[in-house]
Amino acid sequence: MKVKTELVTFKEGIELTSGSKLSMFELMVETYGELNQDKSNGILVCHAFSGNHHAAGESKDDGTPGWWDQLIGPNKAIDTNKNFVVCCNNLGGCSGSTGPTSINPSTNEIYGKEFPFISVTDWVNSQKKLTDYLGIDKWQLVAGGSLGGMQALQWAISFPDSLKKSGIFAAAAKSSTQNIAMNEVARESIRNDSNFYDGDYLKNDTKPKSGLKTARMLAHVTYLSEKHMDLKFGRKFQDINSKVTGGVDFEIENYLQYKGKKFSNSFDANSYILMTKAMDSYDAASLFDGNLEEALSCIKAKLLIIGFETDWLYPPARGREIQLAAMNVNIPCSYITLNGEQGHDSFLFASERYNNIVKKFIDT
Amino acid sequence: MKVKTELVTFKEGIELTSGSKLSMFELMVETYGELNQDKSNGILVCHAFSGNHHAAGESKDDGTPGWWDQLIGPNKAIDTNKNFVVCCNNLGGCSGSTGPTSINPSTNEIYGKEFPFISVTDWVNSQKKLTDYLGIDKWQLVAGGSLGGMQALQWAISFPDSLKKSGIFAAAAKSSTQNIAMNEVARESIRNDSNFYDGDYLKNDTKPKSGLKTARMLAHVTYLSEKHMDLKFGRKFQDINSKVTGGVDFEIENYLQYKGKKFSNSFDANSYILMTKAMDSYDAASLFDGNLEEALSCIKAKLLIIGFETDWLYPPARGREIQLAAMNVNIPCSYITLNGEQGHDSFLFASERYNNIVKKFIDT
Repeated sequence: MKVKTELVTFKEGIELTSGSKLSMFELMVETYGELNQDKSNGILVCHAFSGNHHAAGESKDDGTPGWWDQLIGPNKAIDTNKNFVVCCNNLGGCSGSTGPTSINPSTNEIYGKEFPFISVTDWVNSQKKLTDYLGIDKWQLVAGGSLGGMQALQWAISFPDSLKKSGIFAAAAKSSTQNIAMNEVARESIRNDSNFYDGDYLKNDTKPKSGLKTARMLAHVTYLSEKHMDLKFGRKFQDINSKVTGGVDFEIENYLQYKGKKFSNSFDANSYILMTKAMDSYDAASLFDGNLEEALSCIKAKLLIIGFETDWLYPPARGREIQLAAMNVNIPCSYITLNGEQGHDSFLFASERYNNIVKKFIDT
Repeated sequence: MKVKTELVTFKEGIELTSGSKLSMFELMVETYGELNQDKSNGILVCHAFSGNHHAAGESKDDGTPGWWDQLIGPNKAIDTNKNFVVCCNNLGGCSGSTGPTSINPSTNEIYGKEFPFISVTDWVNSQKKLTDYLGIDKWQLVAGGSLGGMQALQWAISFPDSLKKSGIFAAAAKSSTQNIAMNEVARESIRNDSNFYDGDYLKNDTKPKSGLKTARMLAHVTYLSEKHMDLKFGRKFQDINSKVTGGVDFEIENYLQYKGKKFSNSFDANSYILMTKAMDSYDAASLFDGNLEEALSCIKAKLLIIGFETDWLYPPARGREIQLAAMNVNIPCSYITLNGEQGHDSFLFASERYNNIVKKFIDT
């Protein structure tokens, strides 16, 4: 599989939905496979909250597989022998694209908390600029899970002529009250870290790692299914010699501590706040007085919506809302609920059925 | 309704299940109604995680109604015209009973983090000492919701001859992996507060309020039902003039901020950790090799188990586990699932059906 990583600069900048403007921005982009001559085999995959441009293959740095490596590759559901697959780190992220840790060209200082609010629509607009840069007129598919699924949906709404198909997995047309509530608790733990300095931690030569750790521990609980947790950890006590910290009694506590700490070493706190705010604020129908049918009525792409039974963050019912609205305005739309053992994270794991459905959707 | 508040001292102390001993302890007790001559009309109600001895009527200090005021009072489900109702702040709590904020008589310093681990069984054992102090041979009913329901269940197991009936509402025979996970995130936010000082905050003349606030915000999300949150708050934006803090966009965020802050001013952080550890560690079958049927087989009390449909913290299935085990060993046991709009908190709110069921259970 041919893999290319590229930092693409957009000198013209971007007008944001908030009214702010970035005078220039960069996107860290990774591509898999080759673009064919008529540039018709492109597939854009959009990452979820804590993902990045590294969607497939092994990372050059440490061999980590891409976040959707189970679905993207030679002969996989998203087949890089046939397709040219593109993924970029989202604007506002912390994996190479312009974000809060970047230098603000107008002040020559780190953006930090001054980085503007970014919406799901802003991501789609910036990805459209990337599409133009790549010379792609129409994506064969735009797809993603969770927050990535929201981008896939928004692509179909914002640029109906620029994609043939949209794959919306483990996602919703808007975040629920409970989604917002959980994100606010996570943000609160970051803001309360004494190293947060109201977002100016980098200027103070520090990072709010403990706040980020708590935020990730909470998020991680919402990503897993209760059943899966019970099966994997149950009420087993943590072996005393492998406790990552004092105060831990059960294996599940140790696991969350480990996962949270690992995340806190790599993610940026302002990006965390920005990304969750984008997720919370997303409502596909917000420009249509809350009428989702009206929002979807312009769509020309075929939709594939997948929900996962054990997902309690964006449960299957949230996908059905999109399907129902789409059907009511005659948008071709398939919907399926899959088992998915891993709760919300199920969209990352290729079961045979999941694989086949995505493959068929692309090939048809 | 006759109300009496009393601090009862137990000079003989108590042996704890952990092997530690408290050389003496005090319980803050509130009673409602009057004990009849043959002392047969006593009802013990056990509080949930953040409750205390003030279960009914209006507080003398600030008029706050007791946590179960909707069910306890003259002519209410738990009728103080007929019954003598008793509630105490649990050992390890922070509302007057001996706990981490008390003076350790052996050092003359505040216990703080040195306060020993307390289990649900320890609470039941300390309440049995209170029962003896009151001269009550047999409770007509021991009842509670959530962590209070666990105590009601443990009473039936530990002291089969000392109660006629046990009311176990919105509870479980043990905490699930997800319950433990959520509690660990809450504890993590407390431990990460720079004012926590590894539990020695009082000696440092401070309190980890921001950590407690985050912990409570999270817990509060788990107490409410998703549907109720959607109906009450939806995606409504917070009015700009009534934002309790910056960074808040939605009403639900503002509400959680308000609730969390209020709680953080009144609760003790070491008590928070102790109470959640007691909850996590509870397993009614732990002394019976995990066999719940065997654990329940000694029970002589009649059981009433109530689950609430919208409760996702201790969902109805957790109550059915108790019922099933009880039925298999011929323990008389009624089980019902009620609507309950308020998620886990539904056990606090008296619907007509809930009221009638509890009333009938007591009167029969």
